[in-house]
Amino acid sequence: MRALVFDDGQLRLVSDHPDPVTNEETAVVRPSRMGICDTDLQILRGYMGFTGVPGHEFTGVVEQGPPEWIGRRVVADINFACQQCDWCGRGEQHHCPNRTVMGIVAAAGVFADRVAVPVANLLAVPDSVSDDEAVFTEPLAAAFEILEQVPVGESDTVLVLGDGKLGLLCAQVLATTGADVRIWGRHQDKLDRVASRVRGVIQPDWTGRPFDVVVEATGTRDGLNSAIAAVRPRGTVVLKSTVADAHELSLAPLVIDEIRLIGSRCGPFPRALAALQRGEVDVTCLIDAHYPFDQAEAAFEHAQRRGTMKILLSP
Amino acid sequence: MRALVFDDGQLRLVSDHPDPVTNEETAVVRPSRMGICDTDLQILRGYMGFTGVPGHEFTGVVEQGPPEWIGRRVVADINFACQQCDWCGRGEQHHCPNRTVMGIVAAAGVFADRVAVPVANLLAVPDSVSDDEAVFTEPLAAAFEILEQVPVGESDTVLVLGDGKLGLLCAQVLATTGADVRIWGRHQDKLDRVASRVRGVIQPDWTGRPFDVVVEATGTRDGLNSAIAAVRPRGTVVLKSTVADAHELSLAPLVIDEIRLIGSRCGPFPRALAALQRGEVDVTCLIDAHYPFDQAEAAFEHAQRRGTMKILLSP
Repeated sequence: MRALVFDDGQLRLVSDHPDPVTNEETAVVRPSRMGICDTDLQILRGYMGFTGVPGHEFTGVVEQGPPEWIGRRVVADINFACQQCDWCGRGEQHHCPNRTVMGIVAAAGVFADRVAVPVANLLAVPDSVSDDEAVFTEPLAAAFEILEQVPVGESDTVLVLGDGKLGLLCAQVLATTGADVRIWGRHQDKLDRVASRVRGVIQPDWTGRPFDVVVEATGTRDGLNSAIAAVRPRGTVVLKSTVADAHELSLAPLVIDEIRLIGSRCGPFPRALAALQRGEVDVTCLIDAHYPFDQAEAAFEHAQRRGTMKILLSP
Repeated sequence: MRALVFDDGQLRLVSDHPDPVTNEETAVVRPSRMGICDTDLQILRGYMGFTGVPGHEFTGVVEQGPPEWIGRRVVADINFACQQCDWCGRGEQHHCPNRTVMGIVAAAGVFADRVAVPVANLLAVPDSVSDDEAVFTEPLAAAFEILEQVPVGESDTVLVLGDGKLGLLCAQVLATTGADVRIWGRHQDKLDRVASRVRGVIQPDWTGRPFDVVVEATGTRDGLNSAIAAVRPRGTVVLKSTVADAHELSLAPLVIDEIRLIGSRCGPFPRALAALQRGEVDVTCLIDAHYPFDQAEAAFEHAQRRGTMKILLSP
């Protein structure tokens, strides 16, 4: 089958990649839409030491597996848990210490004609949700994870730092609570995409009232210090971007103002699908381009250009 | 009056310091016991740019103020709040943006024959609590602040990193919950002081199960990274020490394991006094030496010697 393979520091499109190995607990899905995530670009720079087929944002149709799933449009949770440890027993599969992660940690990803996923990870996509929307389920779930971790309501003020893909998703998700959500970023053309969905856009020189909740989604080394500077005493800073670099961080303000810092990763797929079905968030505004899979290498080049938002692939 | 004054980078004992300025909302207290805190030592190195009379750990007798307070043994919350802002209105005086802090921020401290404190900050010391115990109310309250911020119960495992004064107080306070509390430190003689009150002492090469809650009380640059390494996914790290230096910190584990990091500062004085009254914690085991106030400079020299625990002053 065709597959994008990352190996020896090189990303290559090959036509003779072996089909996925399956067992009775896995299904084979044929991706109908795949998204290029910043994590994929980090993998090309060595993140997690991953080699193989990358990719974890997708929607597709089940080709092989239990009869009740065959032919259904699906997405799949990217954390492949062991289902046997204490963590899985408590329903915390996202933190299973034995997990593999599709296209990130020791499991083949979606940039291929076929991908194997555990049946337990499949979720059906509602008919009214298009492929271009469903492919955003994973990053949208990651944005919804904030609401699983931090109570946010109408009386809260929230600042999202960063106008990248994740920042725009987080801002929209937080706005669904009725909170006063502002977003800060350096690119007016990106901020414009969600301006109608949030309360306002903050300028870099903003010096107003500190926020109850600040989401760091810039992925830059300065992001966290900016977030700490913008949050109120006893407020919450949500760390949404995995910056592999070490940060130079002064901890005194964290202690003096008793700030909470919460790392936030993968989130609830069902909640993301429900939001797409109800039209609570607009994900298609993030799409910059579609490429056919045979031009996957060109798609990656495009995705790596500064300022690019979501690049999608179709078979 | 006599006072220890920090000015021009020098700490000097003077005999002609002006008496405290008071108004109808303040009381004058004559300290009967004063404690030297690491924050005092940091002030000598320039922390907060403080000049004047330092000191914030004390117990004493009210000499001047409302009649109902005269002659009573008291301690006093060190945050002098404005009582008029939104924060004070919500009962969050510790985070009042207009606050001064006794001996730390723009308010004279306790290393003197007399100190002025707002009447609103006074708390009576129960008769059964000795001066040597009551002088620990402030740092003990800071340890209890952890329980105000993080739910800790019998089923939790807790690690306290650091065998300094604050570490030993935090370990004892956390053990009052019935949790499985372990402490880590480099000094057996210090760990021995609380060994009977906690479940166990952890060796530096410990590689067991990660903890639900880890309290960083080493005050070292490596402390936070060690805490993050020792906490379980979705666990809580409490930052208890104000290290003025910047930290070099890798944020990826925080995000991947969705760890909560909580800064923790001043705490509830009433809860600390109640614990002293009930004998739930042993603070006198931390005392290394008593000095008369006339030897305050020698007491500070002693306090600065590596490995010294609590040094107390008496008038």
